[in-house]
Amino acid sequence: MSQPTSLEHPLPAGMRDLLPPEAALRRAIARAFLGRAELFGYEIVIPPVFEYAHTIERGLGTLDPREIVRFVEPETGEVVALRPDVTPQIARIVSTRLEGRPPPYRLAYDASVLRRRVGSRARTHRQISQLGVELIGVAPLDGDLELLVLSATALQQMGLPAFTIDLGHADIARTLLADAPNAAELADALAKKDGAELARLASTHPQREALLALPALHGEPELLDALPAAVAGSPARPAIEQLRALVNNLSAALRDEGVTGATLTVDLCEVRGLAYYTGPFYQLFAEGPGVAIGAGGRYDQLLARFEPASPLPASGLALDVDALRRALRLARASVLERPRRIVVSGRGAETFARSLRAGGTPAAVIADDPFGYARAWGYAWVARLGEHGVVISDPEGREADPIPTDTAVARLSTF
Amino acid sequence: MSQPTSLEHPLPAGMRDLLPPEAALRRAIARAFLGRAELFGYEIVIPPVFEYAHTIERGLGTLDPREIVRFVEPETGEVVALRPDVTPQIARIVSTRLEGRPPPYRLAYDASVLRRRVGSRARTHRQISQLGVELIGVAPLDGDLELLVLSATALQQMGLPAFTIDLGHADIARTLLADAPNAAELADALAKKDGAELARLASTHPQREALLALPALHGEPELLDALPAAVAGSPARPAIEQLRALVNNLSAALRDEGVTGATLTVDLCEVRGLAYYTGPFYQLFAEGPGVAIGAGGRYDQLLARFEPASPLPASGLALDVDALRRALRLARASVLERPRRIVVSGRGAETFARSLRAGGTPAAVIADDPFGYARAWGYAWVARLGEHGVVISDPEGREADPIPTDTAVARLSTF
Repeated sequence: MSQPTSLEHPLPAGMRDLLPPEAALRRAIARAFLGRAELFGYEIVIPPVFEYAHTIERGLGTLDPREIVRFVEPETGEVVALRPDVTPQIARIVSTRLEGRPPPYRLAYDASVLRRRVGSRARTHRQISQLGVELIGVAPLDGDLELLVLSATALQQMGLPAFTIDLGHADIARTLLADAPNAAELADALAKKDGAELARLASTHPQREALLALPALHGEPELLDALPAAVAGSPARPAIEQLRALVNNLSAALRDEGVTGATLTVDLCEVRGLAYYTGPFYQLFAEGPGVAIGAGGRYDQLLARFEPASPLPASGLALDVDALRRALRLARASVLERPRRIVVSGRGAETFARSLRAGGTPAAVIADDPFGYARAWGYAWVARLGEHGVVISDPEGREADPIPTDTAVARLSTF
Repeated sequence: MSQPTSLEHPLPAGMRDLLPPEAALRRAIARAFLGRAELFGYEIVIPPVFEYAHTIERGLGTLDPREIVRFVEPETGEVVALRPDVTPQIARIVSTRLEGRPPPYRLAYDASVLRRRVGSRARTHRQISQLGVELIGVAPLDGDLELLVLSATALQQMGLPAFTIDLGHADIARTLLADAPNAAELADALAKKDGAELARLASTHPQREALLALPALHGEPELLDALPAAVAGSPARPAIEQLRALVNNLSAALRDEGVTGATLTVDLCEVRGLAYYTGPFYQLFAEGPGVAIGAGGRYDQLLARFEPASPLPASGLALDVDALRRALRLARASVLERPRRIVVSGRGAETFARSLRAGGTPAAVIADDPFGYARAWGYAWVARLGEHGVVISDPEGREADPIPTDTAVARLSTF
């Protein structure tokens, strides 16, 4: 009887397993990031994987509502959503669950989110693994600076040798587009950095010259010191000055922290999530994944959606862990390094393995074919116990002369 | 305008947030357990939060199928299930995703599972946080022993001072009930340790005397040395001998590992998951939660449900992290200890905080009301920077004389 489909046990489209060694890397990344967040005083929160759709929708940031995977909760008939983002949950927690604790709220999370792919013909999801920090109730710029320093030092600690922090400010485009009847089309043209289209759309716009200058204003922060007069003298000036201050403070802080791998760039034409962000926004890039390894910004209006009485300024930053994994692999970053593990076999293997573990060396006891096991699972050494002592071999079977057990434990622990 | 319901933002029944400091404890527990698992050569796997219901149902262990939360995947119309257990996912992964890697499979996970409450009138779910290890492809007893030693040493490392490992064997009841036409009712009576009901149901059963003796056979392992003749001479004998061997080996291994807090008990009347387990099964208990802090056993038939060609012996053990958290809190276990954190305020706070963090001391910069913040968020000290040096205070505001910055960093790092 042939059952090919059921025997393969496929996953729903867009779902996936994270297997060894990628899952171990995922965990090492989380440890580095959350450990760094803890050093900055951030507390972990763990919200549920689904909750009422209307709660999630209330706090939706830059996402399209169609990206939410909703389903009817079979028990109650209510519509729930698998979270497409953790930020709405953080806003809900701050508004309802942290009474009696004064701001600022420094919260961190390690979560999997789920999004529908909108606009693709294939009906699939994307499962996104995120590590994030939210800082709520700190004055603009200070909050953004802290999140960026925390994240940059975390990436440095993971051993990522080079990455770019690209900074923009939502109020630059917002102020320039403020009174335009065709603001949405202009924003589209800015997003595409499409000068011809911009010229056409902005032909009668009072900020025409400034808008036409924006697409070229992407690159090294020094361009802020040589802005075209139309931009420097535009209503976008205060936002640009905030951006300049953030760049300067961040540059100084990263130098003080000893972060050597970060390159700062600015993008005055950035319009990502214009309706959501209210101040600086940022994306982190590194070679490899082809998408941002992290993104965030300031969204001072979010908390008010949950608690009209006391809106609070807020910034958040989330790493896309899958993109970051690819960047770290490509860079052979130090976070990939795992302790050398030993396969132990033969009589007394359990006791020998226990001695290795007591010294912090991972050891697995294998009865049959220790070499095949060591090769397939990436173990560094095979220790076979016999009458004449311990024979240490590499996974290919190249072996040394037998040595006494005590010596073998000490030697394997320092390899 | 009053909107009490929407302002409260309730969660769907059974869903919950894990907030500080419980979320930090959750993470510390995971770190201890998974770190221990890694020392034993276990690899982390991260399966998706939902997958096709028929895949999950295929690998269902002791759960009632009604406990599965299913929903129709809006994109495809297919029925998916939020996992009620990770073991079916592990079985699927071993069967389909780890080709080319020889057994044994040592896999660990850190996952949230969701179960409907069956039989309760309130229509709710339970979200259960699990840490688990699965050992697939190792001979019976050896595998169970490894999982139990790994888990017991992890609990010891967390500082849980006392816990009980209660051991049973599925074949004891199974062999005694083998030919009984009313096996299901007998199993129910065994589960309730209901002697009167057992006597009634077993009146004509050839193993009547052995069955009637079982309810009393729960307690110290020494009872295995003084079994009633009807039990010792019954077809359950081989299973009892296996159980005895496991108890002896476990007892010796825990002694060798220096585990002082574990008490072993045996329960010959245990019938939990009789249709699923095929060898020893175990539950871990500690004072406080009122439910098991962990459970597992051997299920040699599971893999065959996914891959008929090559069934493999398998054991698994999962900790119930919420129950374990309660036990650890009650015992004031060492895993609760967090690094002492410092609130820093005043001019130059960022630089001072950086010095503290560089030494591994968590530090948060707070502009307003550092004492209120320190008290509400559990910080140990407040460091206020001023013209005359650093004033170190406790959160209640009891302060020492100002000291120079360098001295303050050194002093706070060693506090």
